[in-house]
Amino acid sequence: MVISYPKGSRPTTVEKKQVQYGRRGMQFEEMLNQSNAYYLEKGWAVIHKKPTPLQIVKVDYPKRSAAKVTEAYFKEASTTDYNGVYKGKYIDFEAKATKNKTSFPLKNFHEHQIAHMRACAAQGGICFVLLWFSQWKRCFLLDFDILYTYWQAQNDGRKSIPFADIEKKGRECLVGTRPYIHYLPQIQVDKGEHK
Amino acid sequence: MVISYPKGSRPTTVEKKQVQYGRRGMQFEEMLNQSNAYYLEKGWAVIHKKPTPLQIVKVDYPKRSAAKVTEAYFKEASTTDYNGVYKGKYIDFEAKATKNKTSFPLKNFHEHQIAHMRACAAQGGICFVLLWFSQWKRCFLLDFDILYTYWQAQNDGRKSIPFADIEKKGRECLVGTRPYIHYLPQIQVDKGEHK
Repeated sequence: MVISYPKGSRPTTVEKKQVQYGRRGMQFEEMLNQSNAYYLEKGWAVIHKKPTPLQIVKVDYPKRSAAKVTEAYFKEASTTDYNGVYKGKYIDFEAKATKNKTSFPLKNFHEHQIAHMRACAAQGGICFVLLWFSQWKRCFLLDFDILYTYWQAQNDGRKSIPFADIEKKGRECLVGTRPYIHYLPQIQVDKGEHK
Repeated sequence: MVISYPKGSRPTTVEKKQVQYGRRGMQFEEMLNQSNAYYLEKGWAVIHKKPTPLQIVKVDYPKRSAAKVTEAYFKEASTTDYNGVYKGKYIDFEAKATKNKTSFPLKNFHEHQIAHMRACAAQGGICFVLLWFSQWKRCFLLDFDILYTYWQAQNDGRKSIPFADIEKKGRECLVGTRPYIHYLPQIQVDKGEHK
């Protein structure tokens, strides 16, 4: 993908790298946000990204203007980023992007996200991850139980999921414009059963 | 309830008022957070409060220490504060406290929260509000469809729900210590059906 910069704003090498990193991550998140807004508008599902958790330390209350947070720190989230409801079912997922071409590194996921998805799945929620391969511009929905198998296999030394496995075991989502990432049809709503 | 201040930190009159307001709101929220942690620990449900949405404007990245947000503003949430999964069902609710004794003011709720709960209910999610009467130390679960009737009746001039109606139409939650607010048994899981 060619990034076009506004006149005179072309970043230096260092900045460029940061901008590209930022754009790539942002791009997938923005595509998903647009998809979720589209689903909401159509009445197909209600799925939102959770706000970034911040530890607020200091807030100023200036007269006649909005309260301003002047000191806050990023906190580790205790859940995944996305959840909501689709066809009466609880949906919970994490979305991650990689520039890798041949595998998806498991370091993209954190212990607490895995623990959260395990807990939700035990309650009958439908849990999965959306994996975005930016170099291929392809998105796969991988059910949590499959991810979890690979997650546990990390003890045996495997630190990533081969692309070929994801192609085989995941379900590919249509990438278009309305919505950008059409992941809804790839959710198996009959899968989540409360035990 | 008596508030005890650390030595030398007793606030002035103005500050005191803010502290008390803060504590009262905080108290109900904290009780709910503890209840949710208890449910999670017991494996009964996975319900979390969403982080406060902030518009982050400026972040400092000091060397050798954590990134620090130095300018951010509170944003209006587009959803309710709480959601999660219970017995395979999507649960969505807003929790509000009042010091009123005879009614619950509807101004505690916002248009976007009502719109969000309508959308979730249409998807078969279970939506309700938890109403805390701080003077009575009593908590009621009121199903969204009942709240919505009162919400719409605001056009006729009624701006609050009488306490007697809440006692009759709501379901009271046990207030104890483990958990503080035991709202889970008052959720009617068979109510949410996808249309």
